[in-house]
Amino acid sequence: MPAAMGEFELIQRYFTRPTPKAVLGVGDDCALLQPGAGMQMAISTDMLVAGRHFFPDVDPRTLGHKALAVNLSDLAACGARPLAFTLALALPEAHADWLQPFSEGLLALADAHSCELVGGDTTQGPLNICITVFGEVPAGPLGGTGTQALLRSGACPGDDIYVSGTLGDARLALEALQGNIALPADTLQAARRRLEQPTPRIALGLALRGIASAAADVSDGLLGDLGHILERSRTGATVDTSIAIQLIAAYAYLTGADGPFDAKTSATTALQCVLSGGDDYELVFTAAPSSRAAVQAASIASATPVTRIGQIESAPGLRLVDGHGAPVSNTFASFDHFGQQICSAPN
Amino acid sequence: MPAAMGEFELIQRYFTRPTPKAVLGVGDDCALLQPGAGMQMAISTDMLVAGRHFFPDVDPRTLGHKALAVNLSDLAACGARPLAFTLALALPEAHADWLQPFSEGLLALADAHSCELVGGDTTQGPLNICITVFGEVPAGPLGGTGTQALLRSGACPGDDIYVSGTLGDARLALEALQGNIALPADTLQAARRRLEQPTPRIALGLALRGIASAAADVSDGLLGDLGHILERSRTGATVDTSIAIQLIAAYAYLTGADGPFDAKTSATTALQCVLSGGDDYELVFTAAPSSRAAVQAASIASATPVTRIGQIESAPGLRLVDGHGAPVSNTFASFDHFGQQICSAPN
Repeated sequence: MPAAMGEFELIQRYFTRPTPKAVLGVGDDCALLQPGAGMQMAISTDMLVAGRHFFPDVDPRTLGHKALAVNLSDLAACGARPLAFTLALALPEAHADWLQPFSEGLLALADAHSCELVGGDTTQGPLNICITVFGEVPAGPLGGTGTQALLRSGACPGDDIYVSGTLGDARLALEALQGNIALPADTLQAARRRLEQPTPRIALGLALRGIASAAADVSDGLLGDLGHILERSRTGATVDTSIAIQLIAAYAYLTGADGPFDAKTSATTALQCVLSGGDDYELVFTAAPSSRAAVQAASIASATPVTRIGQIESAPGLRLVDGHGAPVSNTFASFDHFGQQICSAPN
Repeated sequence: MPAAMGEFELIQRYFTRPTPKAVLGVGDDCALLQPGAGMQMAISTDMLVAGRHFFPDVDPRTLGHKALAVNLSDLAACGARPLAFTLALALPEAHADWLQPFSEGLLALADAHSCELVGGDTTQGPLNICITVFGEVPAGPLGGTGTQALLRSGACPGDDIYVSGTLGDARLALEALQGNIALPADTLQAARRRLEQPTPRIALGLALRGIASAAADVSDGLLGDLGHILERSRTGATVDTSIAIQLIAAYAYLTGADGPFDAKTSATTALQCVLSGGDDYELVFTAAPSSRAAVQAASIASATPVTRIGQIESAPGLRLVDGHGAPVSNTFASFDHFGQQICSAPN
């Protein structure tokens, strides 16, 4: 086949699929979606740039997966059910050996969540992937927030703070791939899978509707994203670092006898990656202590582990404590897309 | 102020606005929109890349306008009423002297169409603007297409073909700015305004609901976009080039005594720009001859001139004829975002 192809051929070949849920899919000026009666549309956009969000030579199949996963993760954080997405793609050149695996990785995840590709745009330019995703969430009863979506703004003093899954391994993999830390092959492989193929927590988000008081996805780092909940909820929080530090799957390796560092450096590295590593695409959420059984049930129903790591408080600010409740100085910061990456692993 | 700023400050300062129509706007994991009862969401995405869709040094105010205008134009082509949009923006650096006018140009057009900025993403990278726009259109009666949106697929043999406004001036301006043709200052200024600040034909699209049998917006060139209607409608068409050629506002200049070319070259230039110039953001639409009065009324109600340029036919293919009905050879092609620009003005 030719090395380069036209825009319409490219869309037809790689990105045109049946869209049974949509009124109208790819091929007209607009796609048409009709939410069910009483349903709202949850909408999120993420843009991934080569060299910033992924290595330019990353496997296009995992890139396709990740580009959609980071968007689905936003739907998960709202408790929305995926409906559809649009894909805008700038490519230096239209090559089949890139487009084929990219579209396969993308559409495999889309299929797994019944999320239909309904439209988009392709153009020549520096590699840039912009996806906008649409989900459905029930409107709320009158007098409330107007929605049953999980918002960042609903956390109350006394609420428990939870995170799903594991945190920090994506950042550990990034540091290893950048040559800042050496990891054994199996540890790197597992961590790299978390970096390149995150799992959007759709099932957990849906299960937490009516249970969680607030939620966000962990994309920029736990402290930053929990910080968004605190800011929107006008509350503060305390997080137990002795629990949080164990959320990194590589914890046993990092702190074990074969680990790469001394004990103090290992603990700092693990905690940095957990608290401010980013790229985790887990959920951080809050719920009243009276809902602990319900949270546990939601975790089981969605087959997604959750860990309770702290508590919402009325005093503003985010406090880190050790296992004895003593303060841990917070020298961690969130990843900012216009700032510097701060979590280079210590030498 | 600092030359560079963080992502959250940037969003807060330039892109956070009241969103009275949305259930939830900027600041959470997702925005929330609730279409009215019986309404469908029309969705379109366009990505604009520096050096491909605009000159890197273009006035950021007009760029902000155009980035939204090209998306609103897709809503217009569907007869959808604008509701909201998301903005994903990759910037080499976050500078106030670019962001301020860009956001002003963008939001002025958004305000003019009550189209709320409900979410987005900002990141560092080669300049890239990706907007996804949402409009509302009534669902259709049972047994039809399922929507009252104007589709590309509804043209019938015998229907008239119309275009709104003027065509080709944007391409003329592009050729002048690239140094391929010299234009007098006032001609260039008028043409450049069409290139940099297109007018999305929202009011006309709304007025044509129930009247037009098919519609598309002219973004890639009249022949290409009319071709999409023909393909989706499985019809052919004849277009009268003696009428079409006059759609370029610079027609009088190009073909006048002070024009830049001999008569034949002038006519070729004008026709190339009209038929395949692109970047026009007018509507091309079809309607039954029995609807001529209704089309006229829609034109008047929306204060948008329309011109009848041809007819839909059952024989496949697009035929160009002169004012006497004699064939004009079709050596024009549509602009393809992965192909070469073909309409360089003749010397």
